[in-house]
Amino acid sequence: MAQGNLARSLNKERLDNGLAVRLACRSGAFDGQTSGLAYGYVQGNLAVLPKDWAQDFLRFCQANPKPCPLLGMSEAGDPAIPALADDLDIRTDLPRYRVWRDGKLVDEPRDIKSIWRDDLVAFVIGCSFSFEEALLQNDVPVRHIALGINVPMYRTNIATQGAGRFHGPMVVSMRPMKPTDAIRAVQVTTRLPAVHGAPVHIGYPEQIGIKNLGKPDYGDPVPVENGELPVFWACGVTPQAAIAAAKPPFAITHAPGCMLVTDLKNNQLSLF
Amino acid sequence: MAQGNLARSLNKERLDNGLAVRLACRSGAFDGQTSGLAYGYVQGNLAVLPKDWAQDFLRFCQANPKPCPLLGMSEAGDPAIPALADDLDIRTDLPRYRVWRDGKLVDEPRDIKSIWRDDLVAFVIGCSFSFEEALLQNDVPVRHIALGINVPMYRTNIATQGAGRFHGPMVVSMRPMKPTDAIRAVQVTTRLPAVHGAPVHIGYPEQIGIKNLGKPDYGDPVPVENGELPVFWACGVTPQAAIAAAKPPFAITHAPGCMLVTDLKNNQLSLF
Repeated sequence: MAQGNLARSLNKERLDNGLAVRLACRSGAFDGQTSGLAYGYVQGNLAVLPKDWAQDFLRFCQANPKPCPLLGMSEAGDPAIPALADDLDIRTDLPRYRVWRDGKLVDEPRDIKSIWRDDLVAFVIGCSFSFEEALLQNDVPVRHIALGINVPMYRTNIATQGAGRFHGPMVVSMRPMKPTDAIRAVQVTTRLPAVHGAPVHIGYPEQIGIKNLGKPDYGDPVPVENGELPVFWACGVTPQAAIAAAKPPFAITHAPGCMLVTDLKNNQLSLF
Repeated sequence: MAQGNLARSLNKERLDNGLAVRLACRSGAFDGQTSGLAYGYVQGNLAVLPKDWAQDFLRFCQANPKPCPLLGMSEAGDPAIPALADDLDIRTDLPRYRVWRDGKLVDEPRDIKSIWRDDLVAFVIGCSFSFEEALLQNDVPVRHIALGINVPMYRTNIATQGAGRFHGPMVVSMRPMKPTDAIRAVQVTTRLPAVHGAPVHIGYPEQIGIKNLGKPDYGDPVPVENGELPVFWACGVTPQAAIAAAKPPFAITHAPGCMLVTDLKNNQLSLF
């Protein structure tokens, strides 16, 4: 079944908080993308790894907080993450998952109950949805949202700090902005280190190894108009790319756009 | 006597706090520029106006806090400003003053005791020295300081909000920076709204009416290297230019570079 088919029979307006989305996923009533659902609630990227790989991955996140801001993690074998929500089962509460064996995508299931193991550790990593909501609240336009397409993302020449088997380039997302909006965007996202924080670069893509803004490595191209600055943020695709490159024997992630919706509010993440 | 002659006979290292600088000015022992003195202490621009002009000027500052951040003001006729220092006589405690009649510079005295009047109101406005100190503390290089020259300043096409007889364009100062330093500079100066706060523009001088960065309206030109962004802050010359244009019958300002050094610490001004 294609993603989102079930969603058509569901009143999306009822999915206005984290628990509602999780319960709809858990019951099978919803399997679509979570963008635009549960306004105000923190959504996160999922990475599940066997315990013997999880220690390196935790070190990787700790060493690279801008691309890999860790919102919460489970105990090995425990599908709960109390820091993110009381009523949360990581095996059922996302709309759709991806299963990887030796770095290859092997399945895209609705839940992972049948493949859950006692040695699995779940990591939830902050996502740009949170800071984009803050940008829009502060009247900073976000073009890819206005255009209804995906944000453009690029591999850079900025190296992450490696940890064990995890390493690789930082991936960044790009949003074109007027100069005054770029200044405001630095302020607004500085408040939110748990969801990538301040930009890592402004203005000169070639300085961070990006040759052609029109050809992103992930997502869709977005035009940069005359008099605008391209503003770059560290991106949660960085840890996904590091996992793909490390090729662990077994891993689970969220399917693209099908995030975990937590009980945390975006405003709670704001430093000040 | 040329400015700074007396300073040669004074041990500048003793001028390491606001009171020491003020007392050296008051006694006649010092009449030089205050840049680099009393590290950590807030320095301010001075504007003195007759009471009937002061009300408009206060409204002008209130309406334009980025170029005119008001640190303190006196009661009419009172040479004290307790908010800035306990032991402060605004008539003697700056190294040198400028006296203006009908918009024309008529004198540059060491003190203003003989011309002080019961109807004069003194305004002290925050200055970029404070945020430059914060930039350097945060390892953001400031080129004009490294070069030992004045910051370049430009009249822009950004209008201030007029108040009574005071109006005119915003004047900005420019500091060239690497992109990552520019991001850090937005963060650091956002903390300091009392001394001009965050930049007003980054990257495209022509958008704010600046045709040639190499020809500043005030100060010295500073090179912008390849791969750097010009970063623009609202500047305390804005109110000075508004006063010059309004041509009040009588006004007093500090002489260029000869600021009031207060008892406030720059760190006290930091929002967070």
